Amino acid sequence: MTTPSIDALRNIATQLRIDSIKSTTEAGSGHPTSCMSAADVVAALFFSEMRYDPRDPKNPDNDRFVLSKGHAAPVLYAAWAEAGLFGRDELLKLRRIDSDLEGHPTPRLPFVDVATGSLGQGICAAIGIAANARLVGSSYRTYVMLGDGESAEGSVWEAADMGAYQKLDNLCAIVDVNALGQSGPTQFAHNMDELSRRWSAFDWNSLVIDGHDMAAILDALKTARETKGRPTVILARTLKGKGVASIEGKEGWHGKALKKGEEADGAIAELQKQMIPGTSTPSIQKPEKSGRARKAPDYAKLAAPAYKKGDMVATREAWGTALAAIGAVDERIVALDADVKNSTFSERFGKAFAGRFFENFIAEQVMVGTSMGLAARGAVPFASTFACFLSRAYDFIRMAGISMVNIKLTGSHAGISIGEDGPSQMALEDLAMLRAVPDCAVLYPCEAVSTERLVALMAQHTGMVYMRTSRPKTPVLYEASETFRIGGSKVVRQSGKDAVTIVGAGVTVFEALKAADQLQKDGIAARVIDAYSVQPIDAETLRNAAKATRAVITVEDHYASGGLGDAVAEALSSLGGVPIVRLAVREIPRSGQPEELLERYGISARHIVEAVKQATTKPAAV
Amino acid sequence: MTTPSIDALRNIATQLRIDSIKSTTEAGSGHPTSCMSAADVVAALFFSEMRYDPRDPKNPDNDRFVLSKGHAAPVLYAAWAEAGLFGRDELLKLRRIDSDLEGHPTPRLPFVDVATGSLGQGICAAIGIAANARLVGSSYRTYVMLGDGESAEGSVWEAADMGAYQKLDNLCAIVDVNALGQSGPTQFAHNMDELSRRWSAFDWNSLVIDGHDMAAILDALKTARETKGRPTVILARTLKGKGVASIEGKEGWHGKALKKGEEADGAIAELQKQMIPGTSTPSIQKPEKSGRARKAPDYAKLAAPAYKKGDMVATREAWGTALAAIGAVDERIVALDADVKNSTFSERFGKAFAGRFFENFIAEQVMVGTSMGLAARGAVPFASTFACFLSRAYDFIRMAGISMVNIKLTGSHAGISIGEDGPSQMALEDLAMLRAVPDCAVLYPCEAVSTERLVALMAQHTGMVYMRTSRPKTPVLYEASETFRIGGSKVVRQSGKDAVTIVGAGVTVFEALKAADQLQKDGIAARVIDAYSVQPIDAETLRNAAKATRAVITVEDHYASGGLGDAVAEALSSLGGVPIVRLAVREIPRSGQPEELLERYGISARHIVEAVKQATTKPAAV
Repeated sequence: MTTPSIDALRNIATQLRIDSIKSTTEAGSGHPTSCMSAADVVAALFFSEMRYDPRDPKNPDNDRFVLSKGHAAPVLYAAWAEAGLFGRDELLKLRRIDSDLEGHPTPRLPFVDVATGSLGQGICAAIGIAANARLVGSSYRTYVMLGDGESAEGSVWEAADMGAYQKLDNLCAIVDVNALGQSGPTQFAHNMDELSRRWSAFDWNSLVIDGHDMAAILDALKTARETKGRPTVILARTLKGKGVASIEGKEGWHGKALKKGEEADGAIAELQKQMIPGTSTPSIQKPEKSGRARKAPDYAKLAAPAYKKGDMVATREAWGTALAAIGAVDERIVALDADVKNSTFSERFGKAFAGRFFENFIAEQVMVGTSMGLAARGAVPFASTFACFLSRAYDFIRMAGISMVNIKLTGSHAGISIGEDGPSQMALEDLAMLRAVPDCAVLYPCEAVSTERLVALMAQHTGMVYMRTSRPKTPVLYEASETFRIGGSKVVRQSGKDAVTIVGAGVTVFEALKAADQLQKDGIAARVIDAYSVQPIDAETLRNAAKATRAVITVEDHYASGGLGDAVAEALSSLGGVPIVRLAVREIPRSGQPEELLERYGISARHIVEAVKQATTKPAAV
Repeated sequence: MTTPSIDALRNIATQLRIDSIKSTTEAGSGHPTSCMSAADVVAALFFSEMRYDPRDPKNPDNDRFVLSKGHAAPVLYAAWAEAGLFGRDELLKLRRIDSDLEGHPTPRLPFVDVATGSLGQGICAAIGIAANARLVGSSYRTYVMLGDGESAEGSVWEAADMGAYQKLDNLCAIVDVNALGQSGPTQFAHNMDELSRRWSAFDWNSLVIDGHDMAAILDALKTARETKGRPTVILARTLKGKGVASIEGKEGWHGKALKKGEEADGAIAELQKQMIPGTSTPSIQKPEKSGRARKAPDYAKLAAPAYKKGDMVATREAWGTALAAIGAVDERIVALDADVKNSTFSERFGKAFAGRFFENFIAEQVMVGTSMGLAARGAVPFASTFACFLSRAYDFIRMAGISMVNIKLTGSHAGISIGEDGPSQMALEDLAMLRAVPDCAVLYPCEAVSTERLVALMAQHTGMVYMRTSRPKTPVLYEASETFRIGGSKVVRQSGKDAVTIVGAGVTVFEALKAADQLQKDGIAARVIDAYSVQPIDAETLRNAAKATRAVITVEDHYASGGLGDAVAEALSSLGGVPIVRLAVREIPRSGQPEELLERYGISARHIVEAVKQATTKPAAV
């Protein structure tokens, strides 16, 4: 391979600028100036530094590029067109409903690993992508481009910390320091030293260059490649709108397409004049074959859960046991935790498979972001923390949904049933959070057998899954031979004369059973459903129960919004005619003992009994 | 005032350790070792450095202390007992349901400004508290104590950045570097230089001390007080469990109370031996009277909205206009934005009231955290960004709910109606997020008059309020004289023979009206409700409409979970008998033009018409 000439790369950068203007002007919106600042670096990466097959963007040996500053999507698309993956005319479909060239990159495109556009996330995913190379022994390198405005996001510093901690010398970040944010100058503008000191303090190899000096860019990328033991960041001083005098370095041009006609045409003509004649076309370096494919999982080898009915086991502990068990039959599984591995029980996996366990300390955003990157490269990451702290990473979870990545989240210590630690540690909105991710399965088992079975199903299901686990020990309800499914439920109590249906999940299943016992004494038969799959919910079983009984009571250790009650109500909404009473936590709770709190906040057996009596004695309204 | 003797402060620290052990042992849970590492610093702060009235913790002139490492709550409670706010016997009620001494601090206690316990948040609130001192010209100082494990949270670095950017020399952070996290050693253990380099790179005055050397602590606090132009961080090297040899600096003691009997008694005896005889009791410094009270707001002076029916105005723009208008009659109002002020229109406030506007660059967590701190000190902060990016701060929003602070959040660019920018920029889970905060009002106006009126109500309402605004321009529907209320709705179309109720909010109100027009041609009368208050929802109006019609159709620019449909369904759940059809976005959307997207994802007028026809022609189920 011969190093492409500097002039040839400059010409490509100019072409990328032209294409970025053309496509955004045609779309009538977009961020051309954010593309123009980045164009030289992108040209150097795609046409000199990176080794990849431009016809096979999913090739596992390809070097990876993540555009963390996702609003510069047009320059990414232009680079792939230039590389030959698709025709340049496709670029003119930018942002159209019939094109996958969306406003910000999504994995609908084969060369996008994770969706970007929410700043500070791509670099977290890049940590996972780089970490994956180590797991499979691959020599692919990972490049990620950020903006300087983006660097204000705390998640960038979580990623910086994790990249250095993991000594990811196969990772190179480039910050396009164009000094202008959306609404004004960035905090440090072109004060490169401020940024450099920060990255250095976070133990990165920090290089400051002129981001429009092609030789300097190539040189820095080479230094990055040769730097061992730590990741490199290249802080590239650039000008927003570079190449067109009327907009270059000017405020007021963020996220604004040039107008069709004179404005765009003039800019393009100005750029075309910058083309250097007589250069040759650079050839793209092919990827190096390296790394190994992961073994196919073999769930036939997984032992059945080893519990007897009535054993007292917390679902969080059963989850940890199950995670270690599936780790043995499924090499794809990796686990991540945020310094609570002894509470979530992910430490059981960590002890068994140290090389596949990532300690993220108390940094939930990079934990979920890393998971996204790992999943994009074929691992099946299980990330765990207290369920309440997944709220810290909700923007990442939202973007994981958009990225359609195969990640598994577990939140332990859900609800008021944690007791004395108080409201800051009680997840009461996690079901709402996760149900609002389309296609994310939401599981909430009440005991150990179902937990173990569902963990294995989580791993085998392709797509996002969330499992909610509980702190208190609960009795084993099911035989080890029982089967479960995503989208299923279990009727744990029924008779031919059920007057009411009680739907619980997790700890409230046991309150429901206690209530059913008490109601039986009063001559009221209650059907009890363990809705362990909150999303998708088992609509058929619920509808049958609703039709067979006079009222439905839902009871959940969660706020009243967005959780089990809403899921049940939607499943039954087309029926009409069935009154639904929702028992849920309806105010900010406080510290206390678990049983005291279930009672105080209205989700104990006593409250269920009362609700049943009220619903079955008073005539249906309307 | 005389400086208290070092020995007297040492004795207080010992007493705080004893009290922390006693209270957690009595509770049977808690984090005594995390208190013991912090005790010397806490003693120095409360009994030498800070100026406050121990009998009046809400005194506006008091220096403020925020325990960002909230799990060390017992040492905070012990300090206030030692200061005389309540009797030491109260400490033994720690974590009980009948005591406000909760597992982690909440503002149920008069000396707690914001709830802590989710790490990395207290320091963000402290930014707001310190910034407030400047706004009112007060000389109170703000102290915040973090853990070293906590420093992994990206939000800590957002706060570090903001503290330096605002040159908050009235702010002093102390990091209790006890080198042990929950599940193992912290990332840097006692490598003080790693931490110090980071804080220095973020432009803080960074001091490293032995956190058990009382003279060094006092000296560092004095240096902090005298340092001008930037905040100071004191990195205090400490030992977890300090003072009791069997647990001091040992792993496995996080969040574990000492057992009643020998274990606790032995530890207490060991500490009691460390008491130095013959010391005098330190006197607490009284606060200095300074600063001014904010003027009472005068909403009578607020002009009516200046729109005519049919004017095309985006609600985001009306929001910006209203914010600037209320700023003029309500001095408590401050505004914060995360580099999108020209899109949210908060820049209108920023231009009018530069001194009350905070640019947070692209750092949503510290923006919301700062708001919490400002609100805790009497400001009424309006924080705004794209609605999707509020998900970045969801853990802060959750904790703001627990803190019961008076903050106002606005998310612009909600839903698929933003169009071409694509799913990463579309908030489709924000209603679910905010509805899951108990007592948070959720407003979603569809046009300019209601937006302006509701912004004024937001400011006058005490408590959290979220407003969702939209990108597209919509026609003004209401006369300027129309009144609105939190918890209200408007019936915008009705007749004596309505067959169906269509409930919309925001952009879908106009789809509903279009649908009603089309249905009228087919002889079907539809009642249309503008449910501008999604929480609390106007249950009465909805129930009346449901009773008067044969079906209810909800239509929302939001995912199907946790939004308008769920709110309406719960309001109607006790009725039974009314089929509810929910039109909402049910998959990850893509880029496209707004109208195309409303059509593709099932929330356009055409889909409403179809749903109405289906609901009104087929017999009710069951």
